[in-house]
Amino acid sequence: MNIHFVRATVDEVVAEMEIGPVHRQPYGIVHGGVHSGLVEAVTSVGAALSARQREQSVVGLENHTSFLNAVREGKLRATARPLMRGRRTQVWEATVTDTDGRAIASGRVRFLALEAGSSLAGETVRVKPSAG
Amino acid sequence: MNIHFVRATVDEVVAEMEIGPVHRQPYGIVHGGVHSGLVEAVTSVGAALSARQREQSVVGLENHTSFLNAVREGKLRATARPLMRGRRTQVWEATVTDTDGRAIASGRVRFLALEAGSSLAGETVRVKPSAG
Amino acid sequence: MNIHFVRATVDEVVAEMEIGPVHRQPYGIVHGGVHSGLVEAVTSVGAALSARQREQSVVGLENHTSFLNAVREGKLRATARPLMRGRRTQVWEATVTDTDGRAIASGRVRFLALEAGSSLAGETVRVKPSAG
Amino acid sequence: MNIHFVRATVDEVVAEMEIGPVHRQPYGIVHGGVHSGLVEAVTSVGAALSARQREQSVVGLENHTSFLNAVREGKLRATARPLMRGRRTQVWEATVTDTDGRAIASGRVRFLALEAGSSLAGETVRVKPSAG
Repeated sequence: MNIHFVRATVDEVVAEMEIGPVHRQPYGIVHGGVHSGLVEAVTSVGAALSARQREQSVVGLENHTSFLNAVREGKLRATARPLMRGRRTQVWEATVTDTDGRAIASGRVRFLALEAGSSLAGETVRVKPSAG
Repeated sequence: MNIHFVRATVDEVVAEMEIGPVHRQPYGIVHGGVHSGLVEAVTSVGAALSARQREQSVVGLENHTSFLNAVREGKLRATARPLMRGRRTQVWEATVTDTDGRAIASGRVRFLALEAGSSLAGETVRVKPSAG
Repeated sequence: MNIHFVRATVDEVVAEMEIGPVHRQPYGIVHGGVHSGLVEAVTSVGAALSARQREQSVVGLENHTSFLNAVREGKLRATARPLMRGRRTQVWEATVTDTDGRAIASGRVRFLALEAGSSLAGETVRVKPSAG
Repeated sequence: MNIHFVRATVDEVVAEMEIGPVHRQPYGIVHGGVHSGLVEAVTSVGAALSARQREQSVVGLENHTSFLNAVREGKLRATARPLMRGRRTQVWEATVTDTDGRAIASGRVRFLALEAGSSLAGETVRVKPSAG
């Protein structure tokens, strides 16, 4: 989706994406799937960074995104913050705004925490070393 | 997303998508945003076709997708069916299966029906003529 | 559900409820349905008050509630605030906290705005006169 | 909520509830929180019965309920079936119908499976012996 991450910490993740023709549905407004995808992307990074501090990784369980306003062009900015970061699950919330700062979409993703060594889709979960 | 529509009627929409590297998150499984996007795509087509029969169009209000199983490769198939097609709103459900027929994700999208001539994001809603 | 409304304006609704035996599921923690119900109650009042300013009323379309922490006893407090109040739909968010201020649940409800005189379940929608 | 369970197995749970004045919101239709609560109730029983077969118990993570039609009176019937019953989480779906068999609401609940001996809200999870 050509997402550019601006900031990524355990407390906040911000990413931006330039709207292009591929993101628009037939009426010319950005497709809801783009917003759900942005919400998934930024919340996933935040949840994974938080999980890594406990030597866990995460997989998404549920993505629920509300579409608030229609947008046709410009740059989208998605900002994710945690609602709850537990040992078993996490819930993150993300809001997508347009160039004028209007809220375009807002969603929540529930993540399941996996211990290192768990099996997932036939492979063993490894926790990646910290980036820095 | 390189979605190929197999069938699209007012009662059922089926689409397929070949999994590629761009669809995978770092652990190698298909990103949740892909499933939310597939759900949005097939349900939107069904709701739009149904709305057109009333000379209405639709916009998505809420996309809620549950991730059921992890998948790494092969072809995804999304099938959408209506739960409710009202004059004011519609609810469609879509299930994503993998090559083996396993349910990978399942979601619901709520749509708002718009009368022709309504205004949306600064433009007038037109109802497109039927394809056939 | 024995909900006591503390404050109800177009911008914020606060209600409280004392936890009793009837609210607990067999493990002794408050049943998720209680939290979904509290979220529905406080968001509905806020959306109805906002709609009335436009001589509209509202009906709920979707209730999505995330359960964040388990609670056994004490008083629950639910606070609702609007995410978006449009002419066609509204989205409100509510958070339920316990006596210690811990977030127990948080949810969002999408509402459809109805013009006075619309028909709903076989009756005509009337917009109630303002309380004061 | 005065729910009467008609059938409860690991594959299907059915419950009924007579609509009374306490279930109606000011417009006279059944409050959305009642439907979310019914969905929570029947899916919870199904998930708990399924979990017990693995000597696990469950807690609800997310309840997402769509309101499909308004109803004023009669008996509601909620039927729950599993979408996915995994070792880590389960997803159940429930539909609420009225006396005429019309779909009134439909929702999904995600459950987290807990091993016996886990701690939850300060107490140890016990898996209740099978009813029979």
